[in-house]
Amino acid sequence: MTTGTPHDLTIAEVRLTPILVSDPPLLNTQGVHQPYTPRLIVEVVTADGITGVGETYGDTQYLELARPFAERLPGRRVTDLGGLFALADEVAVDRSRAGGRLDVGGLRGVQTADKLRLSVVSGFEVACLDATGKALGLPVHALLGGKVRDAVEYSAYLFYRWADHPEGVASEKDDWGAALDPAGVVAQARAFKERYGFRSFKLKGGVFPPEEEIAAVHALAEAFPGHPLRLDPNGAWSVETSLKVAGELGDVLEYLEDPALGTPAMARIAEESGVPLATNMCVTTFAEIQEAFTRGAVQVLLSDHHYWGGLRNTRELAAVCRAFGVGVSMHSNTHLGISLAAMTHVASTVPGLHHACDTHYPWQSEDVITERLVFRDGTVAVPDGPGLGVTLDRDRLGALHERWLADDGGLRDRDDAAAMRVADPGWTTPTVPRW
Amino acid sequence: MTTGTPHDLTIAEVRLTPILVSDPPLLNTQGVHQPYTPRLIVEVVTADGITGVGETYGDTQYLELARPFAERLPGRRVTDLGGLFALADEVAVDRSRAGGRLDVGGLRGVQTADKLRLSVVSGFEVACLDATGKALGLPVHALLGGKVRDAVEYSAYLFYRWADHPEGVASEKDDWGAALDPAGVVAQARAFKERYGFRSFKLKGGVFPPEEEIAAVHALAEAFPGHPLRLDPNGAWSVETSLKVAGELGDVLEYLEDPALGTPAMARIAEESGVPLATNMCVTTFAEIQEAFTRGAVQVLLSDHHYWGGLRNTRELAAVCRAFGVGVSMHSNTHLGISLAAMTHVASTVPGLHHACDTHYPWQSEDVITERLVFRDGTVAVPDGPGLGVTLDRDRLGALHERWLADDGGLRDRDDAAAMRVADPGWTTPTVPRW
Repeated sequence: MTTGTPHDLTIAEVRLTPILVSDPPLLNTQGVHQPYTPRLIVEVVTADGITGVGETYGDTQYLELARPFAERLPGRRVTDLGGLFALADEVAVDRSRAGGRLDVGGLRGVQTADKLRLSVVSGFEVACLDATGKALGLPVHALLGGKVRDAVEYSAYLFYRWADHPEGVASEKDDWGAALDPAGVVAQARAFKERYGFRSFKLKGGVFPPEEEIAAVHALAEAFPGHPLRLDPNGAWSVETSLKVAGELGDVLEYLEDPALGTPAMARIAEESGVPLATNMCVTTFAEIQEAFTRGAVQVLLSDHHYWGGLRNTRELAAVCRAFGVGVSMHSNTHLGISLAAMTHVASTVPGLHHACDTHYPWQSEDVITERLVFRDGTVAVPDGPGLGVTLDRDRLGALHERWLADDGGLRDRDDAAAMRVADPGWTTPTVPRW
Repeated sequence: MTTGTPHDLTIAEVRLTPILVSDPPLLNTQGVHQPYTPRLIVEVVTADGITGVGETYGDTQYLELARPFAERLPGRRVTDLGGLFALADEVAVDRSRAGGRLDVGGLRGVQTADKLRLSVVSGFEVACLDATGKALGLPVHALLGGKVRDAVEYSAYLFYRWADHPEGVASEKDDWGAALDPAGVVAQARAFKERYGFRSFKLKGGVFPPEEEIAAVHALAEAFPGHPLRLDPNGAWSVETSLKVAGELGDVLEYLEDPALGTPAMARIAEESGVPLATNMCVTTFAEIQEAFTRGAVQVLLSDHHYWGGLRNTRELAAVCRAFGVGVSMHSNTHLGISLAAMTHVASTVPGLHHACDTHYPWQSEDVITERLVFRDGTVAVPDGPGLGVTLDRDRLGALHERWLADDGGLRDRDDAAAMRVADPGWTTPTVPRW
């Protein structure tokens, strides 16, 4: 029998590096982004000395699971991706810890032990795929069955925002300026289009009363005729308010994202308004799919390889959606270039990806890779080099880790409400529906 | 950046070899297996001279699609699996040809252009995976994300059968003898258990009036207490008959397979009987899933990588089933060792495979590989060598191809009704429901 060149794909070492990444003062219904946000960089090193990289949430509860998980990996093979899930189950001895807590930022549904575990697994799965690809000379998309497109389209992720963090972290100030009304939103969208060529625009809503956000979307529709538009208030509205907004914006929106919380509310809004609804809140695990799809609560599912458990699970999620005629796009929390590369690889392999994917990447001025990924005409070219096609910059990684080490713990867990209290001492996490 | 040893995974050549394989006189509701059944052996050769093998249906209409498909493959890469589907769409210019026809044997639902295309793709997908695995030194299961079990359990596939084909093809006579009543079925089951260690038993029904088949299952239950039992009449019964059988066998069956045709009938039987229903007839494409799952028509879906479009589609099908709480097992038509290896690899990677898979393999005395796969304790050990772990036997392949060449066309398309007419000249394909 003909056999290939043997590679030793055994995991010899795993390195975890928590970091704090500069983040602009982006507003959402919970509060505002802190000056720095935690991420975890995962490195998996094979016996042949090949290093694969991955990236996931870096808050304390993720680190607490990632560390014992990482200790158990040496001796396994980077191709044993199915085994990562069972291992995560074994490591998560006390599953009750995360149960019922709100997630990071409270913006992607209720945190569960399941999602926590899958979010940790995803960082390692991506690192294993990167290592496998580098070892075998194959891009990650080839390990996922091959790309069906050469570039992946992303949308401009518009935020209401301040010019500066109220803490006055001057060194981290970016050049975007404030955006707090329709004119500011349109100016931001114009800059996004000029700098990156994005064609689709998503506005993070739930910040101001619905009338103001409706006006902002109308201003976008007028400024960018024919461009797909989305509005995402992160479940801040009642069903009645959602129906009112859907009625006023139905003609100009590609879809309305998570207007209200929970499958019953979403189902009612979808049925009564006829406006397509997207979600990364009411369906965030495989267990939540059946009810939502059966009730017609979701027309576009926003996948996210981080909390769905990796790139292979993302493909399987897309398969479930295809079978039920539900569209697929991609959700994004604050992330760096490793994750953007991972998102691009998996998105390149998913048939029928008809909606531009979300990404926070343009908001991130810092990264841990040597060459940042670039957007051209709103797309990222699918890397064809081995693995993810990115190279870790150890100096940058070290500097961001130093920042994490120097922190007193106040920024090691994302807390948008705490950040808002710096500007507004009386701020508490809003009760939903806010409107 | 560290990169792996480069392999040239470009497809340089594709070989298609139609063959006729000896098949015993197994009875089903349509008729009886012919003395020989067609299969197509696919070889994909890379620029480095690595050959991957696959196997699929070999009837004329499959060959007519496979040939132009194969011509288009050279120059593509064996890792470009996602691209196979688009290519099949391009090649299947005249989609109407297969539309609405009954499939081979009429035993896996209505034939559609979609299923025909996917069945062709699957043979090439498996060959590409085999070639990739051999080139990279990885088993196919590692290319699918890694096995989660070391052995895959199969069930004994019991058939009512004659001792000989009525044509009197003496050289192909096997030593199983006839099985035409409860005692014969139990004797056959006992032989299966002794020779292969199977624990689960499935009886192909729809051959005799339901009372006789009920008696056979009761005899099996008595002879093999605690062993999972299944009965599959291939949709030969009315809803009323199905409910009657379910009432009499509900306590002893692991599941009842395709008692009646179509999702509405299956949904009624499932609801009224409470007996788990399995299918490889009412749900055979992704497009049929939504209605069946929403209506609760299916409790166990019998996957088949041949007509679902390959090993990766099989994994995705399993993911859809998991999300909807539907069990997964595996269907089988007559197949050889290449397909059994492929079935075993993919089954080893599917989480929650709680039902033993079906296989015709013990009925096949002929094969095209050098070492046949073996059943121990009813399971096949998951091959860990490169690729599928099987080696083509060119002499055997050549001999079976010679048989195909020598045939006047009468056996190149499976036709169980035609075979039955040899014994019973008045036989026509039965109208369902037969009972």
